[in-house]
Amino acid sequence: MRPSGRAANDLRTVRFTADFTRHAEGSVLAEFGDTRVLCTASVERRVPPWMRGQGSGWVTGEYGMLPRSTHTRSGREAARGKQSGRTQEIQRLIGRSLRAATDLEALGERTVTLDCDVLQADGGTRTAAISGAFVALSIAMKRLCATRELKRNPLHGQIAAVSVGIFDGTPVLDLDYAEDSSAETDMNVVMNEAGHFIEVQGTAEGHAFSRAEFATLLDLATDGVSTIMALQNAVLESV
Amino acid sequence: MRPSGRAANDLRTVRFTADFTRHAEGSVLAEFGDTRVLCTASVERRVPPWMRGQGSGWVTGEYGMLPRSTHTRSGREAARGKQSGRTQEIQRLIGRSLRAATDLEALGERTVTLDCDVLQADGGTRTAAISGAFVALSIAMKRLCATRELKRNPLHGQIAAVSVGIFDGTPVLDLDYAEDSSAETDMNVVMNEAGHFIEVQGTAEGHAFSRAEFATLLDLATDGVSTIMALQNAVLESV
Amino acid sequence: MRPSGRAANDLRTVRFTADFTRHAEGSVLAEFGDTRVLCTASVERRVPPWMRGQGSGWVTGEYGMLPRSTHTRSGREAARGKQSGRTQEIQRLIGRSLRAATDLEALGERTVTLDCDVLQADGGTRTAAISGAFVALSIAMKRLCATRELKRNPLHGQIAAVSVGIFDGTPVLDLDYAEDSSAETDMNVVMNEAGHFIEVQGTAEGHAFSRAEFATLLDLATDGVSTIMALQNAVLESV
Amino acid sequence: MRPSGRAANDLRTVRFTADFTRHAEGSVLAEFGDTRVLCTASVERRVPPWMRGQGSGWVTGEYGMLPRSTHTRSGREAARGKQSGRTQEIQRLIGRSLRAATDLEALGERTVTLDCDVLQADGGTRTAAISGAFVALSIAMKRLCATRELKRNPLHGQIAAVSVGIFDGTPVLDLDYAEDSSAETDMNVVMNEAGHFIEVQGTAEGHAFSRAEFATLLDLATDGVSTIMALQNAVLESV
Amino acid sequence: MRPSGRAANDLRTVRFTADFTRHAEGSVLAEFGDTRVLCTASVERRVPPWMRGQGSGWVTGEYGMLPRSTHTRSGREAARGKQSGRTQEIQRLIGRSLRAATDLEALGERTVTLDCDVLQADGGTRTAAISGAFVALSIAMKRLCATRELKRNPLHGQIAAVSVGIFDGTPVLDLDYAEDSSAETDMNVVMNEAGHFIEVQGTAEGHAFSRAEFATLLDLATDGVSTIMALQNAVLESV
Amino acid sequence: MRPSGRAANDLRTVRFTADFTRHAEGSVLAEFGDTRVLCTASVERRVPPWMRGQGSGWVTGEYGMLPRSTHTRSGREAARGKQSGRTQEIQRLIGRSLRAATDLEALGERTVTLDCDVLQADGGTRTAAISGAFVALSIAMKRLCATRELKRNPLHGQIAAVSVGIFDGTPVLDLDYAEDSSAETDMNVVMNEAGHFIEVQGTAEGHAFSRAEFATLLDLATDGVSTIMALQNAVLESV
Repeated sequence: MRPSGRAANDLRTVRFTADFTRHAEGSVLAEFGDTRVLCTASVERRVPPWMRGQGSGWVTGEYGMLPRSTHTRSGREAARGKQSGRTQEIQRLIGRSLRAATDLEALGERTVTLDCDVLQADGGTRTAAISGAFVALSIAMKRLCATRELKRNPLHGQIAAVSVGIFDGTPVLDLDYAEDSSAETDMNVVMNEAGHFIEVQGTAEGHAFSRAEFATLLDLATDGVSTIMALQNAVLESV
Repeated sequence: MRPSGRAANDLRTVRFTADFTRHAEGSVLAEFGDTRVLCTASVERRVPPWMRGQGSGWVTGEYGMLPRSTHTRSGREAARGKQSGRTQEIQRLIGRSLRAATDLEALGERTVTLDCDVLQADGGTRTAAISGAFVALSIAMKRLCATRELKRNPLHGQIAAVSVGIFDGTPVLDLDYAEDSSAETDMNVVMNEAGHFIEVQGTAEGHAFSRAEFATLLDLATDGVSTIMALQNAVLESV
Repeated sequence: MRPSGRAANDLRTVRFTADFTRHAEGSVLAEFGDTRVLCTASVERRVPPWMRGQGSGWVTGEYGMLPRSTHTRSGREAARGKQSGRTQEIQRLIGRSLRAATDLEALGERTVTLDCDVLQADGGTRTAAISGAFVALSIAMKRLCATRELKRNPLHGQIAAVSVGIFDGTPVLDLDYAEDSSAETDMNVVMNEAGHFIEVQGTAEGHAFSRAEFATLLDLATDGVSTIMALQNAVLESV
Repeated sequence: MRPSGRAANDLRTVRFTADFTRHAEGSVLAEFGDTRVLCTASVERRVPPWMRGQGSGWVTGEYGMLPRSTHTRSGREAARGKQSGRTQEIQRLIGRSLRAATDLEALGERTVTLDCDVLQADGGTRTAAISGAFVALSIAMKRLCATRELKRNPLHGQIAAVSVGIFDGTPVLDLDYAEDSSAETDMNVVMNEAGHFIEVQGTAEGHAFSRAEFATLLDLATDGVSTIMALQNAVLESV
Repeated sequence: MRPSGRAANDLRTVRFTADFTRHAEGSVLAEFGDTRVLCTASVERRVPPWMRGQGSGWVTGEYGMLPRSTHTRSGREAARGKQSGRTQEIQRLIGRSLRAATDLEALGERTVTLDCDVLQADGGTRTAAISGAFVALSIAMKRLCATRELKRNPLHGQIAAVSVGIFDGTPVLDLDYAEDSSAETDMNVVMNEAGHFIEVQGTAEGHAFSRAEFATLLDLATDGVSTIMALQNAVLESV
Repeated sequence: MRPSGRAANDLRTVRFTADFTRHAEGSVLAEFGDTRVLCTASVERRVPPWMRGQGSGWVTGEYGMLPRSTHTRSGREAARGKQSGRTQEIQRLIGRSLRAATDLEALGERTVTLDCDVLQADGGTRTAAISGAFVALSIAMKRLCATRELKRNPLHGQIAAVSVGIFDGTPVLDLDYAEDSSAETDMNVVMNEAGHFIEVQGTAEGHAFSRAEFATLLDLATDGVSTIMALQNAVLESV
């Protein structure tokens, strides 16, 4: 029995609110139950030094948690003077995932920065961030096409992510904090619209997982991502 | 004529939304027009090392802007590895302002951290932060009294803040970004419920201000703070 | 009764010693009683990256305290690896104050750095720094005009600063450390030769100040600045 | 055809040299072809602050590359003043992997630090590091048992790791640098002696991988780990 | 011929001014010609963590140059966020040199920090710093003995330092900036009152020095230190 | 009697192993008894910003100790975020020493970085590093001449270094850790093939050294360096 009463293959309520803030080229509030992540896509007409003059663009991610997005307050990374290893890992994951759906040459010498800031955390912030960042990026690309700043849309695929894990001996979909903090195995899965894998990061906490458990987890993730993609498409049609 | 069409002594629409997030002891979204600051009050049962064992508490402020809260994206302070001088100045101001209304002995050996994070910026973020932080702090103190963790409420006064300035030769109240970026003088005023001054920080940008202009600015601020305090009280009665 | 026996409107002995060190374009030892600040103006033929190619110059301030300028030794900021929030606040104040008297276009693409290093502290270091920095800047500009490196003097005004505060219930001028450390209100006032305000930073420590107290403090500051400006002019005539 | 001429399921020559250096409690040179990683296990009688007084121990990993272990020199992280996101990711992976085989209570209040320093890199440094770190940790634990410092061996399992990936359309085992730098998919797999998974980290570079490809990669990894474990056991029997 | 017209074995005018500032337990302005270093000795009743509870004290040095103590302005180390290798080398040298004359057990659990801040530089700042720091330390120790805080003086020797070098083919004593910047060999020599060596740091810049040149340099240093020690003693008798 | 049983003028077994790793232009393992330092010379076609466009090259040194190269583990400098003063001192010494034998103009606009990483420490790591770095640099220069990338060899001299000191009252050559940690005087001497001095750094620990002791130490160093140079030449002939 899951703490939330959900069935093993139930997602939490997932919601994408477009234009949550007004300055960014794309801005989305992504909610997975009580997890709320503000994702913005900012487009700048320059690329990192090592890419200059090649006509190609760049997509990168940044991630942060507001200090009291969590149950107990965690120190502000800006005040500590460095980003934690966990933050950097997630940032790299966001960037790689979104680049997998982007034709960087079609983007031209532009950088899109996907800022994913967690306003409230209840497990699964990184997969909510990736799923929301895809929507923010899509909105930004759509608008740059609409204003003819871009000739064609650099996005050639769809990206969504979800977490799966083994809780109390059972493989379950979309872990909330109560599950995540005591899960035996935790896996983040990023997929594309063809049902293929972009990233899989599985970690055994306490008990190693078997080949059979692995297969069940991937089944759950595949179904979850499919539902999330439908919700992404719905909000994208509305903007 | 002000860009927004407001009269010289008009505030923007000011709104405080209590319980905007759920983990903090106090949480408020403070809006001054398009400026939106999430203020949370986190209570921890420890004090900074230099205060230990004295039976007294501490109130401190932290401030941050989400990278794309602004018109053009600004770098993430956590990524740059340090907080700017402006951020530190604002943090110190928030902490001093709120301590001015708090009986630190009644707080006992606890630290209240007021995290003020700007989700969207349109001028006046520091005064919105202080005004919102007072509401978050009040909610937190009220709840600690309700659960008997505190015997009496450490707050002995009310705090609100507003910006005033000289725009296009005229003293005006509550500058938005369009005014702030071209104002000749900019002043942040923090006051208490008795109409006395807690902090006054005035800066001439371009033209020094006279004693008479100074007086008009303080009049505007006094009126503005009075209106903001009524709104603070309204939301505090509702929680 | 003030600890030093001074009347409420008495300045300490203020002294500006020109050419205290020999390498800088302008060098002044500013003394306000036992507070001694070495102010140097260094002129370099380059501007910060964001100003390049616009034909305009920049004036900036830096501030430091020698570790044992204070009653008890304070850690060296260079060793701790960062400047405190207080240091940055003061640096920004010095820079803004001096820019208010400078025609940056007349300066051409040059940066003047005003280094204000406290050799001995006894209260009021930031206002001594600003008052001394104006003298150092004036000497440097005068010499650049004398050597025809500059065609006309970029300084179009005079700047001085003084602290005022409420000590033991009474508004007083130019607080020393004994007063400053127990003052109820502390205010730093930067003015120009017309008696107008460049910066006002007032902080209530312990008790908020009324509009009437505010007025008295500004009167005291106005008189104090006027005396300091006469002393600045005297030393500037001698170089 | 692989650049090295190996078959798809061929490991490179894997070698573990025990006691490569003399000061550490356990010291191993792990070689996977031209990849050479020096792994040392250092035992200290203290634990991180957050674990003190609980009677339990800690196992952690650190990772570094000598600046010229790579084809072109990379900057020294100590000189740049921070560890890259990649380094931190690998360090966290090493620590988690080895803790999965250790009974931290049996370790008592001790920290074992597994330092994995790459002397020469030719692909697969992180999996070589994990496989070597297990041997270093085993030697250290064995010796602490021999001297009766520990009553029973805290290791309750065996850990090894290998990389797999899709190179030129074909799933292959143990990628060298020539393959790694142009692989379409790269996956690091950490397993235990029961053939269960401790960590799986798969990343699509350029082309997303299907469920079928995923299965083949896991088969290759399972075989590779099994061979590596036999080599680990051989060297452990000899010390 | 030396740029200053001095003979090869001439020191510049050396002067020690006691009590240059008033807060430190010992304070001295050390001048070697135009080189001016403010040396303060600060005594604190605590020792570094690794020395606690052993009843013994510590003597350490810190060094800094004011940004415009030099011919062209050098960046402020506090602003850059780290001390240069040169600064750290000099700090370590000051500390080691002064510890060589101090009985750390007689000091008890106290730390003496010798802050050496260069107000004006013209070559030989580190040897001026060491020679001045000895005077500051002596004054501080004398006063702690006078107030009975210390039972006996922990200083058991005298320390002074001077630079020597080969300029234009000739060994010379006490190089000023004009010589130092083009010297072929530069050597800093720290000695005690018995004419023995505490530290010798010789560096060939451009041409390696022979055994015979080495001997001449040590002769010059021995004579120079002897003169400096007489001046140290003179000022110490006067306080 | 020395702990190792060596005579006062005995070196430990000194060995240089060329091509210890394969990516660097020059790579040498330098062993002085149990002290093992991996020295690599990396050649890059760029120079530091302040040297650009002058047609001249640069030689620089970097130094590090693997965390468990020492008897007890020392913290990783990359993790602490900064290099210690000791590390920086040694790096500067390595760079200066090797530049003393190099014609930087003949090198052209290239930087040679000499990375000296201590795999195992038993005293004398810095002198082993310098002696090994010379061999690595020589190999790199030889190969650049062989491929005609350089027209003539920029090396115009030979460099080697050794430590000497006073142990138990007796001057001895090439101190190991047991001697070094309790030596009264420690001196590092860098010399060229003419028997002249490049660097001499002598430090009295506990007892100052006399002029006569100084002479004996230099005699020992001169003999030691001569033997080391013969070993350098032997390995260089073999590559």
